[in-house]
Order: sequence, then structure tokens, then C-alpha cells
Amino acid sequence: MSNSFGKRWVVTTFGESHGLAIGAIIDGCPPRMPLSESDIQPQLDRRRPGQKRLTSARMEPDTVSILSGLENGLTLGAPIALEIRNRDIRAGDYAAAQSAPRPSHADWTYRAKYGIQASSGGGRASARETAARVAAGAVAERFLFLAHAIDIAAWVSSIGAADAPDMTGHPPTRAQVDASPTRCPDPAAAAQMAEIVEAALKDGDSAGSAITCVCRNVPPGLGEPVFDKLHAMLAHAMLSIPACRGFEVGAGFNAVRMRGSEHNDVFTWKGGRLGTVGNRSGGVQGGISNGENIVFRVAFKPTPSIAKEQVTADYEGKTGRLAIKGRHDPCVGIRAVPVVEAMAALVLADAILLAGIPPARSF
Amino acid sequence: MSNSFGKRWVVTTFGESHGLAIGAIIDGCPPRMPLSESDIQPQLDRRRPGQKRLTSARMEPDTVSILSGLENGLTLGAPIALEIRNRDIRAGDYAAAQSAPRPSHADWTYRAKYGIQASSGGGRASARETAARVAAGAVAERFLFLAHAIDIAAWVSSIGAADAPDMTGHPPTRAQVDASPTRCPDPAAAAQMAEIVEAALKDGDSAGSAITCVCRNVPPGLGEPVFDKLHAMLAHAMLSIPACRGFEVGAGFNAVRMRGSEHNDVFTWKGGRLGTVGNRSGGVQGGISNGENIVFRVAFKPTPSIAKEQVTADYEGKTGRLAIKGRHDPCVGIRAVPVVEAMAALVLADAILLAGIPPARSF
Amino acid sequence: MSNSFGKRWVVTTFGESHGLAIGAIIDGCPPRMPLSESDIQPQLDRRRPGQKRLTSARMEPDTVSILSGLENGLTLGAPIALEIRNRDIRAGDYAAAQSAPRPSHADWTYRAKYGIQASSGGGRASARETAARVAAGAVAERFLFLAHAIDIAAWVSSIGAADAPDMTGHPPTRAQVDASPTRCPDPAAAAQMAEIVEAALKDGDSAGSAITCVCRNVPPGLGEPVFDKLHAMLAHAMLSIPACRGFEVGAGFNAVRMRGSEHNDVFTWKGGRLGTVGNRSGGVQGGISNGENIVFRVAFKPTPSIAKEQVTADYEGKTGRLAIKGRHDPCVGIRAVPVVEAMAALVLADAILLAGIPPARSF
Amino acid sequence: MSNSFGKRWVVTTFGESHGLAIGAIIDGCPPRMPLSESDIQPQLDRRRPGQKRLTSARMEPDTVSILSGLENGLTLGAPIALEIRNRDIRAGDYAAAQSAPRPSHADWTYRAKYGIQASSGGGRASARETAARVAAGAVAERFLFLAHAIDIAAWVSSIGAADAPDMTGHPPTRAQVDASPTRCPDPAAAAQMAEIVEAALKDGDSAGSAITCVCRNVPPGLGEPVFDKLHAMLAHAMLSIPACRGFEVGAGFNAVRMRGSEHNDVFTWKGGRLGTVGNRSGGVQGGISNGENIVFRVAFKPTPSIAKEQVTADYEGKTGRLAIKGRHDPCVGIRAVPVVEAMAALVLADAILLAGIPPARSF
Repeated sequence: MSNSFGKRWVVTTFGESHGLAIGAIIDGCPPRMPLSESDIQPQLDRRRPGQKRLTSARMEPDTVSILSGLENGLTLGAPIALEIRNRDIRAGDYAAAQSAPRPSHADWTYRAKYGIQASSGGGRASARETAARVAAGAVAERFLFLAHAIDIAAWVSSIGAADAPDMTGHPPTRAQVDASPTRCPDPAAAAQMAEIVEAALKDGDSAGSAITCVCRNVPPGLGEPVFDKLHAMLAHAMLSIPACRGFEVGAGFNAVRMRGSEHNDVFTWKGGRLGTVGNRSGGVQGGISNGENIVFRVAFKPTPSIAKEQVTADYEGKTGRLAIKGRHDPCVGIRAVPVVEAMAALVLADAILLAGIPPARSF
Repeated sequence: MSNSFGKRWVVTTFGESHGLAIGAIIDGCPPRMPLSESDIQPQLDRRRPGQKRLTSARMEPDTVSILSGLENGLTLGAPIALEIRNRDIRAGDYAAAQSAPRPSHADWTYRAKYGIQASSGGGRASARETAARVAAGAVAERFLFLAHAIDIAAWVSSIGAADAPDMTGHPPTRAQVDASPTRCPDPAAAAQMAEIVEAALKDGDSAGSAITCVCRNVPPGLGEPVFDKLHAMLAHAMLSIPACRGFEVGAGFNAVRMRGSEHNDVFTWKGGRLGTVGNRSGGVQGGISNGENIVFRVAFKPTPSIAKEQVTADYEGKTGRLAIKGRHDPCVGIRAVPVVEAMAALVLADAILLAGIPPARSF
Repeated sequence: MSNSFGKRWVVTTFGESHGLAIGAIIDGCPPRMPLSESDIQPQLDRRRPGQKRLTSARMEPDTVSILSGLENGLTLGAPIALEIRNRDIRAGDYAAAQSAPRPSHADWTYRAKYGIQASSGGGRASARETAARVAAGAVAERFLFLAHAIDIAAWVSSIGAADAPDMTGHPPTRAQVDASPTRCPDPAAAAQMAEIVEAALKDGDSAGSAITCVCRNVPPGLGEPVFDKLHAMLAHAMLSIPACRGFEVGAGFNAVRMRGSEHNDVFTWKGGRLGTVGNRSGGVQGGISNGENIVFRVAFKPTPSIAKEQVTADYEGKTGRLAIKGRHDPCVGIRAVPVVEAMAALVLADAILLAGIPPARSF
Repeated sequence: MSNSFGKRWVVTTFGESHGLAIGAIIDGCPPRMPLSESDIQPQLDRRRPGQKRLTSARMEPDTVSILSGLENGLTLGAPIALEIRNRDIRAGDYAAAQSAPRPSHADWTYRAKYGIQASSGGGRASARETAARVAAGAVAERFLFLAHAIDIAAWVSSIGAADAPDMTGHPPTRAQVDASPTRCPDPAAAAQMAEIVEAALKDGDSAGSAITCVCRNVPPGLGEPVFDKLHAMLAHAMLSIPACRGFEVGAGFNAVRMRGSEHNDVFTWKGGRLGTVGNRSGGVQGGISNGENIVFRVAFKPTPSIAKEQVTADYEGKTGRLAIKGRHDPCVGIRAVPVVEAMAALVLADAILLAGIPPARSF
């Protein structure tokens, strides 16, 4: 496996639902940065199941402890170990998965690769692993904000056929995002989305979704221009989130339909340096941030765990009917919002350290 | 910079248009594999400018030499250095870029990051860098084919508003792809695409495009299931190609509109092991290949170098008119086909070595 | 910082004495391997202070918990998180270090590098960090033994002027090593060493030492032949142990005095394959293991924490007298024996995975 | 294989004696640094065979070309590819190695690992590979000197039983080192060494040696304090040089004989900051440079290629007599001096970039 992400701000996660704990080690966080558990807990709470009407009913308190790397509220430059003890485990819910692989899950591929699989179903493929990412990402967000005033906002921009209007010019606050149960900050679209999710739930089914993310105050110069372009790292990070199926930056797939004269971002003088009039580039040119907002969009497939019966083969190849029980989100995008923010923060923190950009303000 | 890609099949590229040579080192190719320059040259020729009516008129012979790692036509397990000497350089064409940064190019971001920029315009951001990738990718393709019978086919599936029908079930051969000047194997769509490109050219403009890629015979078990999921590595690889703006695997962004019961790939018995009835997953589940075809799609923006005048600021912030001279492809996707294939090959070769999957057939 | 070691068997350690816990994550351990805490605890107990007359009097129970990566006593192929909660902390002992940097300690260099330092003195430079290495190394040893029957034996071969006779041909068992308080398996040398350490203790001083290590049943083919030669990785690993000052493989520094005809290891037929008559090479030729025993020797400086007064400058440059209080080992080599074994195990496990050598026997 | 060294200043080497070229790519050299081939050639000339009476008689002109990464004499921040074309190849000399593996060479281990071996004998294990390191190291030295005024001096301090006096306090210049055919700057010791080498040569034999290296003006703060301690990286680098058998820093193996009160480096005020009175630590404390000179010593075995007949088994296990023909250095240490300097430069350049230490003076 490869459970680490980043080159200079390196995060390594561990843990499965059935074990004692899940967690992460952050290696590379600069010294003398103020940090406490209360900087991390809010994002964990946003990711936690059971918080909203349209997410899974499981209660996972997900309380984080910082085990190392801190003294007197300041980081030491040493690895920061974060731990979340496991509590609410109901292994029985997953029993159905034992004889037949769940369609569009990792059951079969894990067995093919490892010859063994955690009884709790997903094991490392479980969405639970993303709690460790969210915890580590919250520390990265803290660094980005304290040192560079960078802020990151993600929201649900599509569910099924419902699309929010473009809000990338004026991204919403987290409070605005969390005001609706679908985490879409546009009330009209949010209402439509809620209907779509509820209709799916009623049918024992699930819905696909998309998340839009904007990162503001990102300094120019982030990204390594050949293989580790900033948007390539973002794509890597986003596609590593369970259920993610696509990534686009700036105009993205819409650029396919455009001509160069429409798509090009011409330059203009902006507050003391060159900027661009539009932002079809999504803040990245030649793989390097240009000082405009970083804008990208991420596609999530509908939750594969559905109550509706599926006709599918078991491990021996015998076809039968499978209905997946248990508590599952009907739309993964809603709880994935803080995961997208976390992964974006990890990419930006790593890129800043790789580029050697000094803090714009001291801790 | 970070000019290496891969963990076990590691490719490092070097070179700019104005220097003596460009090239690549491949570290990790297994020993005793038959290899010669003639395994590499065809893909380089497909990438080369000047080969087709709708691509740039520059002539770059791009002849590859293998400098090391081979003896008597067999690899030694040692690094394979590939070199392409530079020839047809016309620095003058790029002179306009010196006072004003070209919109949606890397000119400004390179200066911001490095404080210096190659006079030839793109430097490392130039599409010329991709010749080294294509050369290295051809060696990876050779390995994939000889050891695992894997084949990779990419083609232009959209230009502007013209879309080819879905051909992922029966991907075309390279000869079929190359039969049309737009590299779209569907004749009707190809004709439409050619019109779109020619209309753009006539207007001094350029067109966006998309490439679809299918990898066949990929064994189950490739991909590291947390951060380095197989499709996350593919996304990273594709977004690192100049002008790429988006990536989607399987149903991709269409999954946003689907329900779980539509999107899920149920299992069935197929030739001695479990397979899936459909392939909305694009051959990857839980980040691990499942033995079905790997299917993904990549968006390319319209070429930013356009003859049409643009109103844009120079480095001092003074707004003026810029018309970019020189020989430029009106649609980057056409020549990007072998680049997409090369990057896919690099990801798969690396994933096979990381997974420790033994060759299915000996060299 | 860089708190990870290895490329395929990757260990990341965390923790300081003053925090909640120290520990390690192992990423890369193969699946389906039997493992429990009882495979790890014995080596932790051998490293623990307070176990022998000639080591520090502190009591650190150092009980390890496996937090993840296991189910029903088998590894899952997932990261294995190991945690050791901190208990016996007496911060006061380290107070003297606050105004003056301890000579030949990391106090001053940490401040120069990080601008902050853990109050517990060493922080990450403390020997306590090695407990996490020992825990991770014990898992690697388990893998090496179960899959390849490799065993690793280290012992104290020199303290001060006392040298044990060469025992590399027939390395002692751990019980034989632990039979003497100085961990020297030769009784006569052990007695001399004990005298040397006690004399140093009486003077409020400390003693230098060397450890010899032999790894048996190492298959041929380990080691990457250019930069990551097997003995280069061992040297890296050993010099990363606190207080280590030198490394030599095979004849080592004695080879300086030899002629080629004396030093060369000529070949002979041995149990079905080529072996060497002697082993001046220490089991490595051209950076690759040759199937003979891996033999190396490691030098440790005398403990820098001494009760004896030292005339040294404080952080402001004012010279004064410093006597270091607290509980310190008079000879670090004694407790470093399991640390040397752990680091050797980490190098070998990583080299086996990198070389792709299949298990010689199944778990 | 793993043919790269470093994390931020990354060098990848390629090439065998029988191929078209050997060379290296440097990835990570900062932009805007003045550089030309003439900064590199002198060290290559010092490494070249045939330059001195006591080294091999082969003539290898070893002329370096910079293929990329430069424009108008300044680095671009892009990868710098260095190439040395091969010329004087006499494959015949190596023919004897085909039926019997040369003792204490890499012949047998390469075959065991790769199942194939370069006909030129060493292949990647050949000392010729070090020419690429020397070229890359010369660029690193240039960076270290221009940005930080660091200089590196290595010399032969022992051959056989002859030892030079300690010169680490006032290291010699390169001219002083090169004044003697044994590269020992102490005339009396140099004379003894020459006798030892000549006596060995006369007997068809070879001699072991040691090199001492001093790096001056190294700023405090280099080295990652846990696994990648500065001296651990130096040990890794040195043991990766062909024929190297041991490494010690500061007092090294002599520290085994010392007490803490003798070995400790007490602090004193020195030119505006804390320094140490002595330097038994060799400039590194807790794995981090402390601003004193970095001092280390490296052991080299006697050349394994000897004309003297050896009784050794062939690949089939049949014992016979082997006399190695061809042109071989009787004492590898003499030509290894610039290789030690190169590897030290690569470690320091990487450590400076990892530590994020800004240049003390601009280019």
C-alpha cells in the first residue's frame, strides 16, 4: 500500500473501522505554529456521519487527540501524530458482503490484491479513512491561513440533474454551505437537490454529485512545472478520495467546446502585479499558480451501497440477489465537502514548502 | 522542479528547445527485455509536428538514440537513457513573448517562480518536453505488451462541438486512428472536427478537444488503494500534460447525474474469474484495477498561441495588442494522442512493478 | 524533519518524551502475516532503561499496542500503527539544559534549526525515539524470519579499550548476549567491559562502545547497485541511531591495511551455488548481497550526558560550569543492541521488497 | 535499480562503458546560477585514469557537455543534463570475466540479481559510473561555493600501513593534494605511500587506502534529525562509492576508546555565535550541522582486480586459476578523491535545499 501523501508536508494515515484507532502523522509542519485539537475538531464534525438529515445515521463522535509534535500549544517541527479512537462498530451490518462482493465496491479488488479483507467491509477503502485526512488537512489549513491567509471553500454544486449557479467568483462561507442539508449554498438548487436525494432514498437508491472548490490568496509560484503541476497534484489528491470519478480545473471539460480566443485569460494590472481579466485557467498556468483563485470541480459517483436489490454474482460466480443493509449516505458528496477541503489544503501546504515560499505573515 | 515521474518505473526528462538535446532516463525497466530504437521511433513520429495537415508546420525529425542500459538488444536492468538532439530552432518566432507574457501560457508564472525564462518561450513548459515522455512511454508500452499483452489505444473523441460516438467497447487500432487528420476514428465525426479546426485556423484561432483512452488486458490488482489509487495516478499523469484541463474515469462526470442502481457494475462470471457486466467504473474499483478495460477521458483546452490579436498587458502592466506568430497547432489534442498513450503506459508499468505482479509471459 | 525510513517497507516514527505517546506506522508489511504485540514486546523490553545494573535507572514500561493493520492475528496489507504511551516523565531533570546547551547534545543545533526545543531536553533527538524504531524493527524481524528464515544478532564487541574476540563466524544467541550486563557474549571481555563502565560511572563519566551485527540466511540479490547499495543503506540506518559515529562492513577500516590478494573473497562451490571461502566482503559485493552472512560493526560515542562538571558556554556565550543531573546510561551501546538489530531488520525488509524476492517459505 | 540520489538536489546517473555515453541529470539546481562546462571539467580530469603514474594507464578524455538547463551561461531552474561520450573501449580485456566471476567484484551478484551482465565487466558497478557523479558533484560544489562559500577538500590519508598526520585543522588545497602521485599532501607520508603502492604493483597486487574529507563554511542547521541525519546521509553517500568499506565522522571509531569527558565538545563564543572548542563531533550534533567543519574519513578496500593469480571457482563451480588482465588502478583511493568530494557536495547541496537555508551571498 502507499498510505502517504506529499513530499514536504507528508501525511501518512492508518486505521480501519474494526481496529482500536484511526489517525495520521503529519511530517513537515513548520515549528512554532500555534495549534490545538480545537483547530481540527470542527472539520471532523463536518465530516462525521449522523450530523444531517441526508447523511448516514451512524454516530461516530470522532474525537481527535494530538499525541506528539506540540508543546505549550506550539508545534516543534516534529511529526504531529493525530489519533481518533474507534467506538461505534457494528460488524454485523457488513456480514452480507462476506459471500458476495458488493458491486462497485472494493471488496473484490482487495481480495484479488491482498488475499485477505477486513471483516468490516471497506477496511482501508472505507470512507472512515477520510476522517484521518480531514484531521491532517485541518492542520494544513491552519498553516495556510496563519502563514499566507489562504482560505479554502468547497460546496456541493450538483446532485443528480440539479446544478447550483456558478458561485466561484464569490465563494460562500462554511456557515453558508452548512446552512442547507445538501451543503449547496444556493437555496433554490439546494431544495431541488434535497428532493433528488430524498427520492433516491425512498427508492433504496443513491445519487451522484459534484463539489466545487475555490482556494483564495494562493501566492503565485506554487506547482512544479513538469510532472507535478499544481493542478496535477490536485487531480491526484481528489481522485484519491473514495467515490471520486473526475476532476476539472478552471473551464475544465467546457474548454473542449471553446476557441482559444474565448478561453485565453488576457493579462491586466491588478493591485501591484499582473493578473488576469478572467479565470478560465482556474488559477494555474503552465502548472504554476498565477495568484488568481484556484478553482476546480470534482465528480462523485452515487453511493454504491444501496438497499435496492441487485442481481450480481457471489465470490464463487453464482448469480443471486444482493440488498445492502446498514447505514449509508445516499449521496457521498455531502460529507465529502470537508474531505475535498482537506485534500486541497494538503496539496497547497506541500506546494508552498516545495516552492520554498516564505510565510507572508508570521505565526 | 520535479522532472521525475513514477516510483518503481521512474522516468526523468530533461531539455528545452534551445539546448543541445532533450531526453529521458528510465530507471526500473526489468532486465533481459528486447528493445531497440525502432520500438520507440513510431510513437515519436506520431507526436512530431508537421506530419498532418492540421498540425503545426514545423519539421522536427526527433530521432531517438538509446545511450545506455542495453547490450546486444537486451535491457540490462540499468537506466536507459534516451536522447533526441534538437535541430530546427527558430528563436525569432518567440521574440514577441519577451515584452508581454502570452495569455494562458506559462510565461508569466515561470518568471514569477524562477526569475528567469528560456528565450525559446516555453522552456520546460513547451510541448517539446512531451517528446521525451513519448520516448519513455514507448519503452513502457513495450514492457506492458511483452510481459502482459497490455495494449493502449487513445483517440480524439471531441473537438469543439463535435463528438465521436462511444467506441470504448471496441477501441480502434492506431492505424484507424491515424487514418483521419484529426485522429478521430469515426469518419463522420472526423469530418466535422476537421471543419471545426479549419474554421478556427481561418480565424487565426484554435479549438479545444478531448481524448478517450482504453487500456486492455490490464491484470487485476494494480493501484495502491489509499492515496495512489490507479485512477488517481492516471489523473496526475494526464493533468501533467501541457494544456490538459480535466480527467474522468469510467462514467466520470456523467456519474453525477446517475443513481447508484444505474451506475453500479454488478458482477458476473467471465472466463474463469469474476468480471462486471458493465464498466461504468472504468476498470478501477477502490483504486485497484479489476481486470476490465481501463477507460478514461481527458480534456484539452484550445491552443493558447493564436494569431488573432489579443488585448493584454505587457510585463510592465501596459495594455496593448498581441498577435502570436509562428507555427502552432490549432488543436493540441491531435498530437497529444501519443502523449496520452505514453503517460498511461508509464502509470501502468509503475503500477505493475509496485504491485509486484509477475510477467504473464516471458520476454 | 524527515521521520520516515525505507522505500517499500516504510517506517514513520513520532513522539517525544513529554507528549502522550510515541510510536510508528509501518507501511508495506505484506498481508496474511501472523503478528501480535507479543512479537514486539521482547525487543522493547531489551531496549528499556532500568533493566540492567549498567543502564539508566529510569523505569519505562514501554508497552506496545497495535492500533491498526491486523485482524484475527493476521496482517491486512494495511498500515500497522504501533503506539507506546508515555508514563514516567520527570521534566525537572532536564531543567539545567535550559540556560546552557549540553555539550555534544542536540540542544544547540535544534534551536539553530527550529527556533524552539522540547522542554524534555532531547525531543526528537532523545534516545526515547528509538523505542519506536525497535517496535517497528521487531515487525520487520518477524517478516524476515517467517518468510526467509533470516536472523539477526548484535552484541557489544568493544567498550573502551576492551574488545571481544571475533565471534562473527558463530554469532551468539540473544540469550547469550543478554547473559552479561554489558551485552558482550564473551565472558572475559564482558568482565573487563563491566569494570570500564563502572570506573567511568564512579568518575561521573561515560564510555564509548562498538556493536557487531551479523545477519544470517540473507538471500543473494538484495541491494540496489548504484546509490542504494545494501551496505550504504545499512550505513545510513546505523548512523541515524543517536550517538553512532561510524560504520564498517566486512573487513571495514582494516581493509585499508590489506592487499587485494589478502582481502579478496575467492569463490567456491557451497551447497548448490557459488559462495566465498572467506567473508572480508561482509556478505555484500557490488552493493548486492551474495548469500554470505552480512557482517558489520558500528561505533558509539560515550554518552554525552555526564555528571562530571564541564566548563562550557551558555546560550548567551557566557562560560560556566555544567553538571548534568538525571538518570543516564554510562554506555549507550548496551541498550543500543536491539536498536541496531531493528535498523538492520528495516533495511533488509525494505531491500527484499525492493528486489521483489518472493518468500522462501509461506507464512 | 535505483540510480538517483537526493531528495531536493536529485542526481540520476546512467551509462556503462560499452554504451554510447554516460552522464547524469541534476534536478533541483536553483535558477540564475552561472555555470559552464569549465566548472565541471577539472574534477573530471582529476578522476580520469591515466593522469598519474600510480593510476591506471587507460586514456579516457571524459569531456563533459551540458545538454540542457542553461541559457546564456545561467541555469534556468530546469534539469541539467550532463553527458560524457564513451571512447576508449577495449572489451577484450574483460573476456576472462566471462567464465569465472572475479573475486570481490560484482560479477556474480549482478548475475544473481539481474540474470544478465554487461560484457564490459562492471556495467553499472564499474568505477566509470563515478565519472557521472563527479560531473554532477562539480555542479553542486559550484552552487555551494557561490551561494554559501562552502569548500570541500579530500585527500588520501592512509595507504596500507602509511598514515598521514592529522591535517583536518588546516586542510590542504587541491593543488597541494595533487602535488603527490598518491594525493597525500604530507610529503613524508606520500613517499611511504608511493612505495607501498609500487611494491604492490610489482607483486601484481593492490593496496587499501583511506580518504579524509573536510567541508568548511557549512552553515548550522543542515540535516534532518531522525533518519536523515547529516552524517547518516554522508555515510550513505560514501558507502555507495565502489570499493568503500567504512565511514566515520569526527572521532569516529576512536570514540569507542574515549570517555564522555574527553569526547564532549564544550561550547565557547566564536565570532558572534556559539561554537565548540574541539571538534570530536565532526561538525554534526544530533544529526544537524553545528557550524564547525564537517570532518569524516572513508575506508577503501584494495582494488579487487589484481594480476596475481587467484584460485577461485568459475560460474559452474569448478575451481581454477584466474589472473585479471587489463589496466587497473593498484589503489582506488587515489582516483576516488574527487568522487568523495562530489558525493559530499551532493549531500550538502541537498541538505541546504531541504533545510530551506537561503543563500548567504547571491550568485
